[in-house]
Amino acid sequence: MNSTAVLATPQTEELTRIATALHAVERAMDAVVNSDVEILRDASRHILAAGGKRIRPHLLMLTYLACGGTDVDHAAAPGAAVELMHTASVVHDDINDHGILRRGRPSVNAIWGRTFALLTGDFLFTSVYSLLAPYNELNVTLAAAARALVEGETLQAEAVKNNNFTREIYMRIIGLKTAALFQASTEMGVVLAGGSEAQHQALGKFGYNIGLAFQIVDDVLDIVGDEEKLGKTAGIDVEQGRGFASIQDEPTADPMDSIKRKMLSGSYLQEAQGQAEMLVEMAVQSLSVLPDSVYKQELVELARLVIHRDH
Amino acid sequence: MNSTAVLATPQTEELTRIATALHAVERAMDAVVNSDVEILRDASRHILAAGGKRIRPHLLMLTYLACGGTDVDHAAAPGAAVELMHTASVVHDDINDHGILRRGRPSVNAIWGRTFALLTGDFLFTSVYSLLAPYNELNVTLAAAARALVEGETLQAEAVKNNNFTREIYMRIIGLKTAALFQASTEMGVVLAGGSEAQHQALGKFGYNIGLAFQIVDDVLDIVGDEEKLGKTAGIDVEQGRGFASIQDEPTADPMDSIKRKMLSGSYLQEAQGQAEMLVEMAVQSLSVLPDSVYKQELVELARLVIHRDH
Repeated sequence: MNSTAVLATPQTEELTRIATALHAVERAMDAVVNSDVEILRDASRHILAAGGKRIRPHLLMLTYLACGGTDVDHAAAPGAAVELMHTASVVHDDINDHGILRRGRPSVNAIWGRTFALLTGDFLFTSVYSLLAPYNELNVTLAAAARALVEGETLQAEAVKNNNFTREIYMRIIGLKTAALFQASTEMGVVLAGGSEAQHQALGKFGYNIGLAFQIVDDVLDIVGDEEKLGKTAGIDVEQGRGFASIQDEPTADPMDSIKRKMLSGSYLQEAQGQAEMLVEMAVQSLSVLPDSVYKQELVELARLVIHRDH
Repeated sequence: MNSTAVLATPQTEELTRIATALHAVERAMDAVVNSDVEILRDASRHILAAGGKRIRPHLLMLTYLACGGTDVDHAAAPGAAVELMHTASVVHDDINDHGILRRGRPSVNAIWGRTFALLTGDFLFTSVYSLLAPYNELNVTLAAAARALVEGETLQAEAVKNNNFTREIYMRIIGLKTAALFQASTEMGVVLAGGSEAQHQALGKFGYNIGLAFQIVDDVLDIVGDEEKLGKTAGIDVEQGRGFASIQDEPTADPMDSIKRKMLSGSYLQEAQGQAEMLVEMAVQSLSVLPDSVYKQELVELARLVIHRDH
């Protein structure tokens, strides 16, 4: 994303500021999970050190800077909060999915066991709350996104359990579990910067649409990856008369697999990629409320990167 | 607790107001868990309808009224938040403890299974956040209590796992997992009523000490109940050379059992009851910062009831 730095040296200051902002987010996350209870601190740092794209705090910070915000230290805690909210849900997900690997490392569940994974997820949720509690004007926004995230995860678990998923249900799930938190991230960036109501509306839409596109692409990449990885095994399963639905019964299967695989039917993969591209273009249109700046350019680039990635 | 109503008719107005306040809390809880996602709504209402003592919102409301608060509808959401925070931890506890019964009814875990119990607990946490988000001045207090609760639960799970518990560790656990939320409940009551700094300090101590006493008595009652219930089985276990520590290995055992049973050794039971009585008397002393009122009387009665109960 920082390829512009090579071409355009006058932008160095802005790019440095973005890097400083993201570094401040890392420090805020590290500080808030520094519990006296070692296991919570160690498990939290383990999952944070495993990386992750940090796309939510990146969106929050770019929006903040693009709307004229200058105090990146003040925006660091909200940036950390949106990333930790996502991280909490990931840790709980790995319990329900029996996930062994996460971001290429053993999951919290795999190392510390179910009880401590559950408590680590709870701890990360409370860390979100601790970080944001002093930011009066932001709590209603993040509380709504937190609720949506859990509702989305629940609808997903239900759809898998009942083997009942349609395009409509899929879109509702990803709107709740992913897009709502993306939207909250950009909205909080605007509010923190003291942006206009028009910017709040437009950047909220930007975040929501990027969130939808991000999840669609994520699921497409999963399907493609699974196809390449599982190839032969999947063929054997079909020969033995086991349909896709049976995948959900295997304890190590991702519960979304059956939904994702259903989406493989027909031309859906290509269609999904096209839909994601359309959402990103809609999102980019929303950015017309912003004055031109390096930060705006970076938002455009981040949006396009959402659909042009291979992991 | 309302026995005073029979003796003193002039207090009818105050007692009616308390009842109205607690009813408003029930309505606030019912409203916030009314998710579009049926399973979250149903599971939340199931655990709420099973009852529970509602001691945390009761403390919040009595403190609020005793400090001169008059708008019980305004205090209802914070009252609901402290009860739902407790309820969320109970639902997650039942996953880790394989709890089948809760409040005399099947646990969420037993009816809906682990995945949905985990998500219902998460949902209740986010409901706490939704309820309190608009109350700017309260979020820092409740966030700290939420964090303490999870830290206390984690220390407890660790102590059980490592079979390493001392009096000091036990007191640290109950301070974090129980007393901190009691303290937050009374402190929020003072803040909502616009009470003085002296009242904030004193009522905070009151809540904390009542919380410690409540948990000690809870554990004593559990031990006594288990002794009566398990009597012979426990004897057989000892004859077969199985110590108390082995209890933790049985999947249906409450993980606190080994700690509680350790406390049985020597004269600890009697000592614990004595300690709880002392804590309650210390708590009652703190109430001298309050003007005389029916609400203050009810706080004293509630405090004494904490140690004189049989369930």
